[in-house]
Amino acid sequence: MGHYKINEDDLFFILRDQLNYGRLCEFDRYRELDPETLDMLVTEALKFARGVIDPLNEAGEKHGCIFENGRVVATPEFKDAFRQYGENGYTAVARGPKYGGQGFPQMMRILVNDLMYGAAQSFNMMPSLTHGAAHLIESFADERLKALFVPKMYGGRWSGTMCLTEPGAGSNLAALRTTAVPDGDIYKIKGTKCFISWGEHDLTDNIVHLLLARIQGAPEGIQGISLFIVPKVWVNDDGSLGQPNDVVCTGIEKKLGLHASPTCVLNFGDNDQCRAYLCGQANRGLAHMFQMMNQARINVSVSGTTLAGTAYQHALAYARERVQGGDLAGRKDGYVPIIDHPDVRRMLLWMKAATEGLRSMIYSAAFWSDLARELPAGEERDHYEALVDFFTPILKAYCSDMGFQVCETAIQVLGGYGFTKDYPLELYLRDAKIMSLYEGTNGIQSIDLMGRKMKINDGGPFKAYMRELGDFCEKQADHPVLGPEVRRLAEVSARLSETALALAAKRDSDPLHWGAASYPALLCFGDVTLSWRLLDMAVTAHRLLESGKSGDFYTGKIMQATYFSGTTLPLTRARLETCFREGREVVELPDGAF
Amino acid sequence: MGHYKINEDDLFFILRDQLNYGRLCEFDRYRELDPETLDMLVTEALKFARGVIDPLNEAGEKHGCIFENGRVVATPEFKDAFRQYGENGYTAVARGPKYGGQGFPQMMRILVNDLMYGAAQSFNMMPSLTHGAAHLIESFADERLKALFVPKMYGGRWSGTMCLTEPGAGSNLAALRTTAVPDGDIYKIKGTKCFISWGEHDLTDNIVHLLLARIQGAPEGIQGISLFIVPKVWVNDDGSLGQPNDVVCTGIEKKLGLHASPTCVLNFGDNDQCRAYLCGQANRGLAHMFQMMNQARINVSVSGTTLAGTAYQHALAYARERVQGGDLAGRKDGYVPIIDHPDVRRMLLWMKAATEGLRSMIYSAAFWSDLARELPAGEERDHYEALVDFFTPILKAYCSDMGFQVCETAIQVLGGYGFTKDYPLELYLRDAKIMSLYEGTNGIQSIDLMGRKMKINDGGPFKAYMRELGDFCEKQADHPVLGPEVRRLAEVSARLSETALALAAKRDSDPLHWGAASYPALLCFGDVTLSWRLLDMAVTAHRLLESGKSGDFYTGKIMQATYFSGTTLPLTRARLETCFREGREVVELPDGAF
Repeated sequence: MGHYKINEDDLFFILRDQLNYGRLCEFDRYRELDPETLDMLVTEALKFARGVIDPLNEAGEKHGCIFENGRVVATPEFKDAFRQYGENGYTAVARGPKYGGQGFPQMMRILVNDLMYGAAQSFNMMPSLTHGAAHLIESFADERLKALFVPKMYGGRWSGTMCLTEPGAGSNLAALRTTAVPDGDIYKIKGTKCFISWGEHDLTDNIVHLLLARIQGAPEGIQGISLFIVPKVWVNDDGSLGQPNDVVCTGIEKKLGLHASPTCVLNFGDNDQCRAYLCGQANRGLAHMFQMMNQARINVSVSGTTLAGTAYQHALAYARERVQGGDLAGRKDGYVPIIDHPDVRRMLLWMKAATEGLRSMIYSAAFWSDLARELPAGEERDHYEALVDFFTPILKAYCSDMGFQVCETAIQVLGGYGFTKDYPLELYLRDAKIMSLYEGTNGIQSIDLMGRKMKINDGGPFKAYMRELGDFCEKQADHPVLGPEVRRLAEVSARLSETALALAAKRDSDPLHWGAASYPALLCFGDVTLSWRLLDMAVTAHRLLESGKSGDFYTGKIMQATYFSGTTLPLTRARLETCFREGREVVELPDGAF
Repeated sequence: MGHYKINEDDLFFILRDQLNYGRLCEFDRYRELDPETLDMLVTEALKFARGVIDPLNEAGEKHGCIFENGRVVATPEFKDAFRQYGENGYTAVARGPKYGGQGFPQMMRILVNDLMYGAAQSFNMMPSLTHGAAHLIESFADERLKALFVPKMYGGRWSGTMCLTEPGAGSNLAALRTTAVPDGDIYKIKGTKCFISWGEHDLTDNIVHLLLARIQGAPEGIQGISLFIVPKVWVNDDGSLGQPNDVVCTGIEKKLGLHASPTCVLNFGDNDQCRAYLCGQANRGLAHMFQMMNQARINVSVSGTTLAGTAYQHALAYARERVQGGDLAGRKDGYVPIIDHPDVRRMLLWMKAATEGLRSMIYSAAFWSDLARELPAGEERDHYEALVDFFTPILKAYCSDMGFQVCETAIQVLGGYGFTKDYPLELYLRDAKIMSLYEGTNGIQSIDLMGRKMKINDGGPFKAYMRELGDFCEKQADHPVLGPEVRRLAEVSARLSETALALAAKRDSDPLHWGAASYPALLCFGDVTLSWRLLDMAVTAHRLLESGKSGDFYTGKIMQATYFSGTTLPLTRARLETCFREGREVVELPDGAF
């Protein structure tokens, strides 16, 4: 087992040089913060990730999860870490101080997750879900419930879950059948939920489930779904723990990865005694839950990216040390480190560009999401909100798929050693695979992108995306160094825009053909976005070089951008072509011919 | 755990309709065979794969490999299966009868491996390596050694290994340091070998290692490497077992996949008592070993393909059964099986096309390799030999990478369930990852292809490839249905040819830039080859439809070809463009900028 690796300079380049994230401190809400405080949080969180979280990865792989008689024994080392995580303020880093939050901008929650997920994916799902669940309570429940649950969850005392999926209702939440029957002030829940991460474990005194169910008599479909708070152990009004609730874990999944994160089947109300509080408005559960789901989608993109990042760093370190074969060009005598072999270098440069670009995509969106929250109501604020809306499915799907590919490529650099457990790469690969599957499969993201996100608000999200991208291309088209690549980006973007509009128009007239092209189209949006963010970083680096900074570091930012966009955008353009093709094989292939 | 799945009709379509493999029985060597016998072997081998081999996959995953005090306890169920495999003639299916072979064409060895690897990758490595090792002895050793070792290995009594890699000599065999000192008629071996599959286990009475070492005083580099037979237990002249040899297993690897196949570190001669026979000519060891390595490379492509094949079949079965969500076009009421969702269908069709195309690539090469063996000396025979030479690195790298991608896509079809061990897909994914790494990484294959294979015999292998492909395109350019796609293939092939020649010319003048483009170029060869084979199958299917056959089955062959080439070749053309680009970022990025 190796250790978590990240290049801090690369991270700070995005935060400070590309985005100037310290600007967020100018907003009223953050007037007590300054850029140095943000930097300090990054440094402290990184120290915590390295010192406290990183060792959990190995401990978790060794211990795994043990299921016995309805109980789950989780990795013992996680217990204290979860507590510390909360107490040190990482769980609620971006929540207001009222219930124990640290009051940092939203972006800093992404940052904490980036560092912590990279250090131990299985573990970090626990505080991350806890935050999401508590944030739902903070956002939608009444004051009494907030006070009862939220501080304990943010503080690392209790954990939380999101209970959506049922055996017959995975991607299609409209089909969910768990029921809630009013019983005085509370509700009685009955139903089975599956794939519940951290649904049961022995690390905290209580687990607070945020659960979707139908109140008796509610409308069919997604209009009849409500959100409930279902504590594993009932909480008395004074905050003390009461009787165990009627929630039973009937099994955990055996999985490719995430071995230390229990994935549970939970039965609610087998004995008709499962008590719950309504959270927010009746029948508005799905709308409420979307707050957590959107966050979860972003977190998925963070996970894919950060696993890719540490995988790349491991491959790089290996390539520098491993001596094998002679130099192809005879520049050195004898055998050389494999980083000198151009095919290895090609993989390294691609990984470097991919991971930095993905990270920049995520932090750009996170930064914009803070702007959307803090700017005064008006056009600019709407613009950033729409932009983030459009980015979300792209981030979720593209970062997860690319992240997995980077992990695969990192293994390739190590050759046979990459296949062994001597290095953590095979673990990253296994953990990363979930990212394309949960929180809405990547196919579903593509349908959201090419359907709803192209359509809502008269195409507002799409227009915001194209405007932001177009502004960049226009401004930098004649850049002395990056001009040619920016113009290529502009050209491909124009094709992307046409294709997306043409496809969106087919949503109603030819939905099957549309559906067959939605995922390839999402990939094109991903390629373009990544190239754009890399070129934006390159412009920044060039500016810094011009202003007197020096160093290979900045040259690297420029070269990774021209390499990635130069080798990717031609393929993107070709893929766009295929989105337009007339062939209807996907739709028309007879079922019996598969 | 599910079970091995293969569509026999698809397999026979390639063997009989596309290749007419029964023609091989017209050659003198196979005059006692007829096409029906070949068919019967397929059917029998499939029955054996399903009945005997398939259950081993689950048993192997449960048991794994246990290392204790220099001994490896392998999955007990493998013992009897290995014996049966040999006794039933599968190990030596394509070897002559003299030492126990079944005398079938070479192609049938590929076929047996296809079926058996698909049913249990970890297990089948054992008979497959045994065959390769015994075949080396049969090919290069003297009569006495052949009689001593080969029948017992082919017959399932003893297993075999190939011992090439050393801790400091992986991809670069020139660096190997294991020594052989003459001692009367035999040699004394000293050295350490690692990554030796099935290097130690408790399933057979003996293990016969085929090992590369340097005879004392031999030249440096690959010119000084010889091949040795190193039995785990010494074999007396009468064939009985003597004293244990001085070979010690010092550990096994913990790995991402292949959990039931022990990957060993072996110490030879720690007590100066490791006795060995020279196999073949001194200092010609690497040339001898290439027979086994070429076979192993083909086997890797078979493994990647067959794992992809069973993965696709599982995804297909799931997509037919899993009901989720409504029909996008409203063709049916209520919820529908997910095969009706166009994005799922897109993945299924891509997987279908990919796996059938990969299989056709492999069997085409296998068939040509029999032609190269059986045709009378002359131009035609040379053509097929050159063709197979060129195909080998393409098959190894492209089938392994595509096979992995198919396994990944199959998981995607299952959503969250694909991540669980309820289905064997995660196992296929893990096992498939090794294919791009061992038997020469895919990067090394690309260097072999774009270097040696473009150059040797005045570019003969490349010319043979282009001739065979060109003949097809020319002949089918005006095909009434497939003409447009064939012409697209011809156009991309022409670009591929130009690019490959231009790149090959850079091998000496600009080796670093060449090296950075070799793998992308190999991918282009792969895409073109796969599209070509699919279009060839489609032409065949169209002919059968015209001649009165009917059924969705044949329509499927046509549609998978137009879909795959129509969505892939535009990207291939774009990738070729990138092979030509001027940018030298890969070569010139400063080391410190990574």
